Amino acid sequence: MNVLKRKIELEGIVLSDTVLKVDSFLNHQIDPQLMLEIGKEFSRLFAEEGITKILTIESSGIAPSVMTGLQLNIPVIFARKRKSMTLINDLLTANVYSFTKNETNEISVSNKYINEDDRILIIDDFLANGQAALGLIDIVNQAKAHIVGIGIVIEKAFQNGGQILRDNGYRVESLARIISLTDGKITFLSEQTEEDL
Amino acid sequence: MNVLKRKIELEGIVLSDTVLKVDSFLNHQIDPQLMLEIGKEFSRLFAEEGITKILTIESSGIAPSVMTGLQLNIPVIFARKRKSMTLINDLLTANVYSFTKNETNEISVSNKYINEDDRILIIDDFLANGQAALGLIDIVNQAKAHIVGIGIVIEKAFQNGGQILRDNGYRVESLARIISLTDGKITFLSEQTEEDL
Repeated sequence: MNVLKRKIELEGIVLSDTVLKVDSFLNHQIDPQLMLEIGKEFSRLFAEEGITKILTIESSGIAPSVMTGLQLNIPVIFARKRKSMTLINDLLTANVYSFTKNETNEISVSNKYINEDDRILIIDDFLANGQAALGLIDIVNQAKAHIVGIGIVIEKAFQNGGQILRDNGYRVESLARIISLTDGKITFLSEQTEEDL
Repeated sequence: MNVLKRKIELEGIVLSDTVLKVDSFLNHQIDPQLMLEIGKEFSRLFAEEGITKILTIESSGIAPSVMTGLQLNIPVIFARKRKSMTLINDLLTANVYSFTKNETNEISVSNKYINEDDRILIIDDFLANGQAALGLIDIVNQAKAHIVGIGIVIEKAFQNGGQILRDNGYRVESLARIISLTDGKITFLSEQTEEDL
């Protein structure tokens, strides 16, 4: 998605060989017009899938998910990282390990909002080691719903999350795939390379 | 805002005399079309204010804020409740006490994204005791930016947050104002009552 790649090139800050900061438009400040374009692209990519609900995780997954839900005219559910005061009963939960923070969080979704007739699109802002996506998959499986695919805004393709998910048979659509952050330089997987894979 | 009030009447669950659960369209599952209507309404109410940025707080403030930002064509910033790995330097912080959880959270915003030329609209999902709004106001004041007003999706008008903010001279626009949750019944401040105040 070229408009996204250009934005990453212009505003992304490489903090290390593995950490990209995109706080100016996705993770802290949000660019609503870009989120709308992202929503349109996910909507186009998964248009034929008969999706009934989008599942994401707070907080940075919410903006791209809501714009996708707007296009597809379906609800969005965000998994909580902390238990809510008013979200206490009948929870589906999964453990998500964060390599960067070296901690495990229990994420939770009310079982009221996903059932076995649902066709779920999982959306998240980043895909690195795949732990968050695997946690969301676990929750959808507990609800016996069907996963139609996983939409990712930025995939760090030099980490193994994308491969794990694809090897498990999931359709993963990443709008920007970064193959390297070495020496402070952001290198995208080129369209050509992508076709060769 | 009638479409919102109808949604609250249909789907809101009164958990106690002070707690209303709206997890089906705002706080856990999100209705993107309703968020768009909310964004249009905030945009209409504050259209003349020359707003440059919206400030909200994760997670439930993000969806209505992004839709408002889309209408006004301006960025949204969400304050974080937990420190981010990639959000470490030059933070503006404020303490927010939660009466329901009986705990104080430090919220934070990067000082890169708010400056003294900004005209800020603060948006949040709920207004009860006003602690979150006061924390966001504190942060905007630290940045020496101007606050044009506060947009609230649901105001619990039987708690004192709205009065504190209005007494301090802030323009508060709440799309649904609830005066009572007593006996499991949701009672809105009527338009007539509102004019009398």
